[in-house]
Amino acid sequence: MSITQPDLTRINTFIFDVDGVLTDGALYVFADGEKVRAFNIKDGFAMKHALRQGYRVAIISGKNEPGVRVRLEELGIEDIYLGAEDKVDVFEDYIYLQGIHPATVAYMGDDMPDLEVMQRCGVRACPADAADDIREISTFISTKGGGKGAARELIEKIMKEQDTW
Amino acid sequence: MSITQPDLTRINTFIFDVDGVLTDGALYVFADGEKVRAFNIKDGFAMKHALRQGYRVAIISGKNEPGVRVRLEELGIEDIYLGAEDKVDVFEDYIYLQGIHPATVAYMGDDMPDLEVMQRCGVRACPADAADDIREISTFISTKGGGKGAARELIEKIMKEQDTW
Amino acid sequence: MSITQPDLTRINTFIFDVDGVLTDGALYVFADGEKVRAFNIKDGFAMKHALRQGYRVAIISGKNEPGVRVRLEELGIEDIYLGAEDKVDVFEDYIYLQGIHPATVAYMGDDMPDLEVMQRCGVRACPADAADDIREISTFISTKGGGKGAARELIEKIMKEQDTW
Amino acid sequence: MSITQPDLTRINTFIFDVDGVLTDGALYVFADGEKVRAFNIKDGFAMKHALRQGYRVAIISGKNEPGVRVRLEELGIEDIYLGAEDKVDVFEDYIYLQGIHPATVAYMGDDMPDLEVMQRCGVRACPADAADDIREISTFISTKGGGKGAARELIEKIMKEQDTW
Repeated sequence: MSITQPDLTRINTFIFDVDGVLTDGALYVFADGEKVRAFNIKDGFAMKHALRQGYRVAIISGKNEPGVRVRLEELGIEDIYLGAEDKVDVFEDYIYLQGIHPATVAYMGDDMPDLEVMQRCGVRACPADAADDIREISTFISTKGGGKGAARELIEKIMKEQDTW
Repeated sequence: MSITQPDLTRINTFIFDVDGVLTDGALYVFADGEKVRAFNIKDGFAMKHALRQGYRVAIISGKNEPGVRVRLEELGIEDIYLGAEDKVDVFEDYIYLQGIHPATVAYMGDDMPDLEVMQRCGVRACPADAADDIREISTFISTKGGGKGAARELIEKIMKEQDTW
Repeated sequence: MSITQPDLTRINTFIFDVDGVLTDGALYVFADGEKVRAFNIKDGFAMKHALRQGYRVAIISGKNEPGVRVRLEELGIEDIYLGAEDKVDVFEDYIYLQGIHPATVAYMGDDMPDLEVMQRCGVRACPADAADDIREISTFISTKGGGKGAARELIEKIMKEQDTW
Repeated sequence: MSITQPDLTRINTFIFDVDGVLTDGALYVFADGEKVRAFNIKDGFAMKHALRQGYRVAIISGKNEPGVRVRLEELGIEDIYLGAEDKVDVFEDYIYLQGIHPATVAYMGDDMPDLEVMQRCGVRACPADAADDIREISTFISTKGGGKGAARELIEKIMKEQDTW
């Protein structure tokens, strides 16, 4: 873990990938094609808490499945971008429309489709079990794996730094 | 682990949170909105055994979903409080109505909504993977994670101490 | 692990508990009451292989659910005793009717309901994560947890000892 | 890990077993007989990426269930052989019809039914938690378990070696 103080205190927006970040990367595949994922209750608590305290929480995922949206909306997250073919495009549109400075964004990703977006953000975060190329460019590597509390650790760390936890 | 003898020998009531305590915190989310959790068979054995030996076993959870009640009732647990918005309120009502002294309660929680209740109980217990703030105020930290036998370890430890196991 | 040679070479019958032995003890509980368990493919391979080589493979479980029977029958196991209230009774009937000497049985259990039966068997085996009281009386403690290949390790060890693997 | 340079640079075809390789070997068994498996999102990314870069990716599994085919086809894999009673037969037919030299194949298996096929291939790979007999004949043992990124590690390693990642 090597977050520099300046990054942490400026963050007001959290962006998360889904598979491998909010989940452990497991896809439970049913015969009818439904794919089920496991989300983490402590991640959920932290995302809700961050929203309540005035932070932005957004999701950008390349996949688009109903179960994912169900879970995220339930947490009160409104900025949900599923089926994103190019994450950089989605990210640039999002921060432009919301007037967000990229240096104020903490983005947690775990694999190649997250690489380019992450390089634009103030805090580049990843779970402990992220792909090697992602770990190499990250400024915050969680001690926990995807779906095992990595998102929670990032949020708690930043909010505690800002005395908002 | 730092339980003091007096606590252990006075306990006659166990109260458990659900997500992250009786489960590992994973929520398997289906497209139709159903959320499935994994309970642990050894926790279940211990809760049934404690009830049979005359202990009280209660559940206080902020969530309210049918699968959870199904599982808990099957174990013979009757004091099930789901959808608890304020756990302290539910706890205070429960011990008042049942005439329970808080010093005789072992409460196992894992995250912020459990913090305040735990501070009122004789034994403040948590799984190995509880949130940092919960670990800090706990007097019994299980060697096992939520849903991996943490509840079992607490019950077995206390009942063995009291020669009721 | 402390199997004595005599035990291993005499074994011709394997008996397994289900939850916590052939599974990791997790019960995935659905809203309609269905409980799903995860079985292990390498355990399955070993049980089928043992049957093909002429060993007896039997199951004694206190629970009785359709998914369990589905999986076990598929492996070719015929001696399936589910819903066993007293495992000793079921065990005694089974070995009497089949003419099995208890010293030729390797029994793998993980919790208190297995304790008494195990004490009658030639090899008393348990997964790495069995209850403490079971570990204490076991003569074979697998290096793997329940549902993670514990049954496979026992079968492979004994069959290799007998050159039947 | 003991891959020799020559092997790695000649590989143009990946063949994977399913249970225990692309999954962690867990079979979630439902009452109606459906068996659900968990696939890994990072394995999926790597298989898609390899296909896009011109590698062949094939699957040979002894089992035959609809959920498996759903997932594999979705990744763009066309060479899917499920229900293979004798994997050597299927393998020999496949490489003959496609004109593949076995020395250019990296095959990842985890248990006895993979043993004979693996011995014919340029790279004999297995997950960290493969059966002992498979580990012994492997030239590439992943640091990750089946379904936990073992397939991803193999593909990434070989493609990086060939500068195609």
